[in-house]
Amino acid sequence: MKIKYDLIHKDKNSEARLGVIHTNYGSYETPMFMPVGTQATVKTLSPEELKDVKAGIILSNTYHLWLRPGEDVIDKAGGLHKFMNWDGPILTDSGGFQVFSLAKPKDITEEGVKFKNQYNGDNLLLTPEKSIEIQNKLDSDIAMSFDECVGFPHTREYVEKSVERTLRWAKRGKDVFNNPRQSLFGIVQGAEYEDLRKHCVEELVKMDFDGYSIGGTAVGEPKDIQYLQVEYSTKYLPKDKVRYLMGVGDPIDIIENVIRGVDIFDCVSPTRLARHGHALTKFGKINLKNAKYKMDFTPIDESCDCYSCKHYTKAYIKHLLNAEETFGARLLSIHNIRYLIHLTEELREAIKEDRTLEFREEFIKNYYGEHHE
Amino acid sequence: MKIKYDLIHKDKNSEARLGVIHTNYGSYETPMFMPVGTQATVKTLSPEELKDVKAGIILSNTYHLWLRPGEDVIDKAGGLHKFMNWDGPILTDSGGFQVFSLAKPKDITEEGVKFKNQYNGDNLLLTPEKSIEIQNKLDSDIAMSFDECVGFPHTREYVEKSVERTLRWAKRGKDVFNNPRQSLFGIVQGAEYEDLRKHCVEELVKMDFDGYSIGGTAVGEPKDIQYLQVEYSTKYLPKDKVRYLMGVGDPIDIIENVIRGVDIFDCVSPTRLARHGHALTKFGKINLKNAKYKMDFTPIDESCDCYSCKHYTKAYIKHLLNAEETFGARLLSIHNIRYLIHLTEELREAIKEDRTLEFREEFIKNYYGEHHE
Repeated sequence: MKIKYDLIHKDKNSEARLGVIHTNYGSYETPMFMPVGTQATVKTLSPEELKDVKAGIILSNTYHLWLRPGEDVIDKAGGLHKFMNWDGPILTDSGGFQVFSLAKPKDITEEGVKFKNQYNGDNLLLTPEKSIEIQNKLDSDIAMSFDECVGFPHTREYVEKSVERTLRWAKRGKDVFNNPRQSLFGIVQGAEYEDLRKHCVEELVKMDFDGYSIGGTAVGEPKDIQYLQVEYSTKYLPKDKVRYLMGVGDPIDIIENVIRGVDIFDCVSPTRLARHGHALTKFGKINLKNAKYKMDFTPIDESCDCYSCKHYTKAYIKHLLNAEETFGARLLSIHNIRYLIHLTEELREAIKEDRTLEFREEFIKNYYGEHHE
Repeated sequence: MKIKYDLIHKDKNSEARLGVIHTNYGSYETPMFMPVGTQATVKTLSPEELKDVKAGIILSNTYHLWLRPGEDVIDKAGGLHKFMNWDGPILTDSGGFQVFSLAKPKDITEEGVKFKNQYNGDNLLLTPEKSIEIQNKLDSDIAMSFDECVGFPHTREYVEKSVERTLRWAKRGKDVFNNPRQSLFGIVQGAEYEDLRKHCVEELVKMDFDGYSIGGTAVGEPKDIQYLQVEYSTKYLPKDKVRYLMGVGDPIDIIENVIRGVDIFDCVSPTRLARHGHALTKFGKINLKNAKYKMDFTPIDESCDCYSCKHYTKAYIKHLLNAEETFGARLLSIHNIRYLIHLTEELREAIKEDRTLEFREEFIKNYYGEHHE
């Protein structure tokens, strides 16, 4: 079935929205953070561990799965859910973000994007049609339109042309889309130009997508620009459709963008931070490789309900990291993902009580307080 | 408490023994395979996963924990069980095997073994007393005497001298041993010389250890020599004490040595094989990186009751290995450890019914059959 979004309550003092998204695999409250399973696995974690941290939708990457193991392997396996043993909803990106970071500007044409396979050097072409074809085969619950992701900085002139191309590509993808149990999102581009964002939204809405993503973020732009990009998109997006902000997972950014009306987030940061020994806490990020944790026999966060905090100490996790044992990254991944999901739970409570702005103030005070490393 | 061993049934046609070992953390049937948690973690696995594959005792390494994080960290954490969140029994080795592989012959003196810290180059000395002191602090359930592990090949003259030194070291360690909830094992050396093994056993038994290990194996000796080493040890060991063969985990070797009267095994092989993409099956080892598994949507073994075989296909695990995702090694580690533990379960059934020799014949026929890669 197509996803359905119900707006439950809008914060009286901001654009923050409490909602529910109904999917092929159950209903989930928003705002929501989606863990990223790039290669059909959320790094170091099992599906049971994802359930345990209360993950709803997870994200997987079309680009990576296209190259390895190939969409036909996953199709023959019975789709991505069966392949990776995940009986919750899956959203796939379009591959656009990945190929743009690999392609040279001259390789971006009206047809699509040319680039080299990073594993064997083969010449490849990803088009709007091909991206949708792959995603149809992966059989995710939510697919993304293939868009042009413009970096930062950029010229207004380039962004103008790029928005038009993104709109033509959205149309081409929608025309070949043929998986009835899958939903398709359009992606709003237009950088930090309000009129271009507005125009992009209006044209996408005419095509009537099942939900809308906000793109062109997480490409190195300053925070204030990111927040403007979001504001200029949500301002014009329909209230009855879900909004997904791509690639954003910093705790402060989640809060700021929830306040600007975003419903869904994803980011590789919780697992990437984990591999580097970092834990997210309400008092900011801490680095467990730091010598001061050698004899610290307390959990990362006494009040956290995750498996790692219930059973393991900072001293043990520090030891695992020093000894290069993967169980260390696993324990930190569990904690960091749970941290972001718990943050969205707190935001949902705050929205319900119209105190999202106060929540932000309190959160920032702790996060950037004296404990911050 | 000290461990206690009850011999339940001896196979009528071989030396194979069905027994029960009573520990601080419950009672477990033997023959038993112990997963190895070198650095206070069984590589890639959680304690819950170890319980799930029916692990009983696990092994951890004195040498590694001495260097990282240091026995004092673990002592202050409340012992190894608390440190690593394992509420089952733990056996620690003496560090002897590791330092002998690092030390030059001239560095082995009556006092102990000199070697360089592999992480920072510091000069270190491990003595029988120091090994016991570390193990007492780690607070494992079963500690090992510090012995001289002679490599292969060797001269009889060297082994003769070495056995005497191992006996003097066993005595020195026992004299300083002071953890009342811990048991201490003596280690039988003597290479493939029956008279030396017999002598070593007799002298160790006079010192009255809580159990006995068979050492000098897994050092590169041919299989027939290994089996003789074991035979010449178990032949003289007391029937009412448990026998542990160090470092042996090949399925055929487990069967052959159970038939020769061994009760406990350990080996890093199931997790090491996993990291290289190998799965143990009743038809021999298979390499899941092999191209033929690309579209193989069956589990490693349909009849296996492990988590990996219940939920994942060869194609998925192959994909994870190719994509260098640690969840692949984790799924294979679960399977391989479960495989060896299940093998000991089958052996216990066979012993009960006095058909251990038939079991070996049947097993070898499958294992070295036409499916073997």
